[in-house]
Amino acid sequence: LIETIHSTAKLGAHGVWGSDPTQTGVKRLALSDLDKQIKDWFIQETKALGCSIKVDNVGNVFATYPGKNNSALPTGMGSHLDTQPTGGRYDGIYGVLSGLQVLRTLKENNFVPNYPITLVDWCNEEGARFPMSMMASSVWAGICSKETVYQLKDVYDNKTTVEDELKRIGYLGDIECSHSANPLKCHFEIHIEQGPILESMQRKIGVVDSAQAYTWIEVTFMGVAQHTGTTPMEFRRDALLASSKVILDINKMAKSHGGLATVGKLDLQPAVVNVIPEKVTFVIDIRHSDDVAHQEMEQEVEKILKDAALNTIGNGIPLEVSSRTLYKSPVNKFNKDLVALIESSAKEIVGEDNLHHMVSGAGHDSCCTNRLIPTAMIFVPSKDGISHNPKEYTDPKEIELGFRVLLETILKYDSL
Amino acid sequence: LIETIHSTAKLGAHGVWGSDPTQTGVKRLALSDLDKQIKDWFIQETKALGCSIKVDNVGNVFATYPGKNNSALPTGMGSHLDTQPTGGRYDGIYGVLSGLQVLRTLKENNFVPNYPITLVDWCNEEGARFPMSMMASSVWAGICSKETVYQLKDVYDNKTTVEDELKRIGYLGDIECSHSANPLKCHFEIHIEQGPILESMQRKIGVVDSAQAYTWIEVTFMGVAQHTGTTPMEFRRDALLASSKVILDINKMAKSHGGLATVGKLDLQPAVVNVIPEKVTFVIDIRHSDDVAHQEMEQEVEKILKDAALNTIGNGIPLEVSSRTLYKSPVNKFNKDLVALIESSAKEIVGEDNLHHMVSGAGHDSCCTNRLIPTAMIFVPSKDGISHNPKEYTDPKEIELGFRVLLETILKYDSL
Ligand SMILES: NC(=O)NCCC(=O)O
Ligand SMILES: NC(=O)NCCC(=O)O
Repeated sequence: LIETIHSTAKLGAHGVWGSDPTQTGVKRLALSDLDKQIKDWFIQETKALGCSIKVDNVGNVFATYPGKNNSALPTGMGSHLDTQPTGGRYDGIYGVLSGLQVLRTLKENNFVPNYPITLVDWCNEEGARFPMSMMASSVWAGICSKETVYQLKDVYDNKTTVEDELKRIGYLGDIECSHSANPLKCHFEIHIEQGPILESMQRKIGVVDSAQAYTWIEVTFMGVAQHTGTTPMEFRRDALLASSKVILDINKMAKSHGGLATVGKLDLQPAVVNVIPEKVTFVIDIRHSDDVAHQEMEQEVEKILKDAALNTIGNGIPLEVSSRTLYKSPVNKFNKDLVALIESSAKEIVGEDNLHHMVSGAGHDSCCTNRLIPTAMIFVPSKDGISHNPKEYTDPKEIELGFRVLLETILKYDSL
Repeated sequence: LIETIHSTAKLGAHGVWGSDPTQTGVKRLALSDLDKQIKDWFIQETKALGCSIKVDNVGNVFATYPGKNNSALPTGMGSHLDTQPTGGRYDGIYGVLSGLQVLRTLKENNFVPNYPITLVDWCNEEGARFPMSMMASSVWAGICSKETVYQLKDVYDNKTTVEDELKRIGYLGDIECSHSANPLKCHFEIHIEQGPILESMQRKIGVVDSAQAYTWIEVTFMGVAQHTGTTPMEFRRDALLASSKVILDINKMAKSHGGLATVGKLDLQPAVVNVIPEKVTFVIDIRHSDDVAHQEMEQEVEKILKDAALNTIGNGIPLEVSSRTLYKSPVNKFNKDLVALIESSAKEIVGEDNLHHMVSGAGHDSCCTNRLIPTAMIFVPSKDGISHNPKEYTDPKEIELGFRVLLETILKYDSL
C-alpha cells in the first residue's frame, strides 16, 4: 500500500519539503492530464485483479470485484485521486489506494466475497480547479445536476469547462451519473483526518460519527478607486479595509460559537499600489458540527457584512456589499450500523483505547453518498494536523492500521 | 486644449462611466503599443510647430521650441502621457497637453521667446505596469540608474522588461537619460490635484509648495497552508488574518498621525476556498507632509508588523514576516522663486481668493526634477477628489484657467 502511494505520487509530484524522494506533495488537479493518467492507471490495476469497469458521464470510475451473488448490489468503498494545487500524497488518495489494497488482498488470497465489491474513484472531490467540492459524488447523489457541473469553469483560465475536459481526457462515460442508474448498497471511506485531533489524543483510528455543516459564502465589496496619496482618510471607501474588518470579525465570531471561519481566496481590483481598492471579492468558509449553531453563524456573517459596509472604520460613507451562497451542506450523520461495524473492527485491530469517535471537519464524498445509502468513514492521524499542504503526512504504521480496519469492515459487511 | 484632451483619449479609451463619448477613462500603460502611438503623435504635433525632438535612452521625449538665444538652457515644462489601468483622461495628460497648448499659442501668435522652451513627456510616471513610479524622471535626476529600471518587469506577465519594451516600441533613444547630458533650466508642471481639497475650498488654482513624503513597503507574511474544515481556530497560522490586522492597524495609525496609509495590492497563496492562506504579500503606501512624522509612521509600521506576526488574533504561534522598502521619497519643497512666479500669475488670472497654497499628496515627475533644478507645480481641482479612476474629471473652465496660469508663468519666466 505504501509502495503504491509513493509510486503513484510521481503522477503530479509537487512541493518539495524534504530531501527524500517521497517528501513532496502532489498537484493533480481534477480532469487534468495527470488526472487522466491516474484514472487510466486505476482502471488498468483493477482490471488486472478481475474487476469490471464502469465510467459514468461525470467522470466517476467504478471498479467492481465479483462476488458469489453478482446480481446483488455491490458493497461500495471509495474516495478520490484528484488533489489540491498544494496537495499532499494522502488526502483522498489513501482511501482509493486502501480500497485497491483490499481488492488485491482478496485476490492474493483467492477469497471470493458473497457480494460484489465496488471501488470508486470519485471525480473532482477537491473543487480546487473546478470550483465545487465533491462535484461528481454530488451529482451521483442527486444533490446537483449533471448540467450544472458541466458548465463549471476552470478557475485558472475562467474558460475551460468540466464538460470540455471530460471529453478531452476521454472520461465522459456512457453510464448515467446517478445512484438509480448505477447503485451501490453502501459506502465506506477511509481518509486521513486532515486535522490535529487524533494525533493530539494519541489515538490511531477515528470512528467518524458525522461530518460538520459548512457554507461557502462569496462576498463582494464595492468601494471607490481613488489615489492613495491625495485622498484624505475620511474621504475613502476602501473595499479592502472593509474586507479586512470582515476577516477579523468572522474569526472572533467563529471562536465565540466554537465553530470555524476562514477566508482562503480573495481578489482585489484594480490591484495597484497607489490606488485604493475599489472591488474586493472573497469567499467565507464557515463550519460547525451543530446545525443550529451553524445557522446562527450564517446570520452573524450577514450582520458582520452589513456592519463592514457601513464603513465605520473608514468614514461612514457606506460601501456596496453583496453576497451569495456558493455551497451549503448540513451536518451529515453517518449510518449507525455501519459506524458500529467500523468501531468493532477498530476495537479488534487497535483496541478500544486507540480509537476515538469524532466529527469530520471536512466534507467528503461520503457526505454525498450518505444522503441516499448507508455510509460511514474511518480516519487515521495526520501529522501536525496538516493537510492541503505538501507536508501532509501519516506514519506508515498508521497507514497500515487504517487499511486493516477497512479490510476487516468490508469483510464483516460482506459476511452480514 | 479640451478638444486635444478628448481626441487623444481615444488612444486607450477605457472604463465607460457615462453616456457621452467623452465619459470614459483611459488605459494607456507605459511602453505599450498605445504609449508608442501617443508618443508618435506627440512628436508629430510638436514637430509641426517647429520643435526639435530628442528621445533619451529611458523613453523620455523632449520637444524644444526655439527661442532667440538657442545656446541657453531651455525653460522646461512637462508631465506624462501614460496612465493607470483604471486611469482618467487628465492625470499627467493634462500637463503635457497644456504644455503643447502653450507652444501652439506661441506659434499662433508668432511669438518668439527669449530662450528655448522644452516640453517633456516623461516615460512611465505611473509605475502601474513597470513598478516604479516616476521611473524615467528618476533616472534623469540621478535618483536611480538606467540599468536598474531596464530590468523592471511587467507586473502582468512577470517577464517582459522595460528594456525589451523600449526597444520593441522604438523609444530607446540615443541621448543619455540624465540632466548632465540633456539639461533643463527649470521645470514647471501643471497637474490635476487628484484630491478633494481645492473643490471643497472652492478654489480654482493650487500653488503647490511641496509634495509629501512617501514610502512603499512590501510585506510578506508566511503562515501554514492548512485545511479550513479540520484545523481548529487555535492551531492556525493564517497569513491573511495577520495581513488583515495590519490593514486595520495602519489605518488607525495613519489617522492618529494625520497622515495616510493604504494597501492597494495584495496577493495570497494558495488562494483556494478551503485552504488557510499560507503566504500573503502586499504593499503598504504611507505618506505624510512632514518628514519627521513620516519617519514615525515608518517606525510604527514595523511595530504593527511585528505585532501581527505574533499572531495574537490567531493562536500565538508566530508567523514569519519580512518587509522591504520598494520606494522612498522625502518631502519635496519646491523652488520658492518659481512658486512665487506661479502665485503672481494665478493672482492675475483668478484673483487671490481663488488660489490656495497646498501640499501635493501624490508624487510627480516634478519631485524628481526638483532634486536638481528649480521646479514648481500648479494644480487644478478634481471633481469629488477622484483620480486613478475613469471618472476623474475637471471642469473645462478650470482646465482653461490652469492653462492660462501655466502660459503666463512660462512667459514671465522667459522674460525674467
Ligand atoms: N476532504 C476535503 O478536503 N474535502 C474538500 C471539501 C471541504 O472543504 O471540506
Ligand atoms: N500623480 C501620480 O499619480 N503619481 C504617482 C505616484 C504616486 O503614487 O504619488
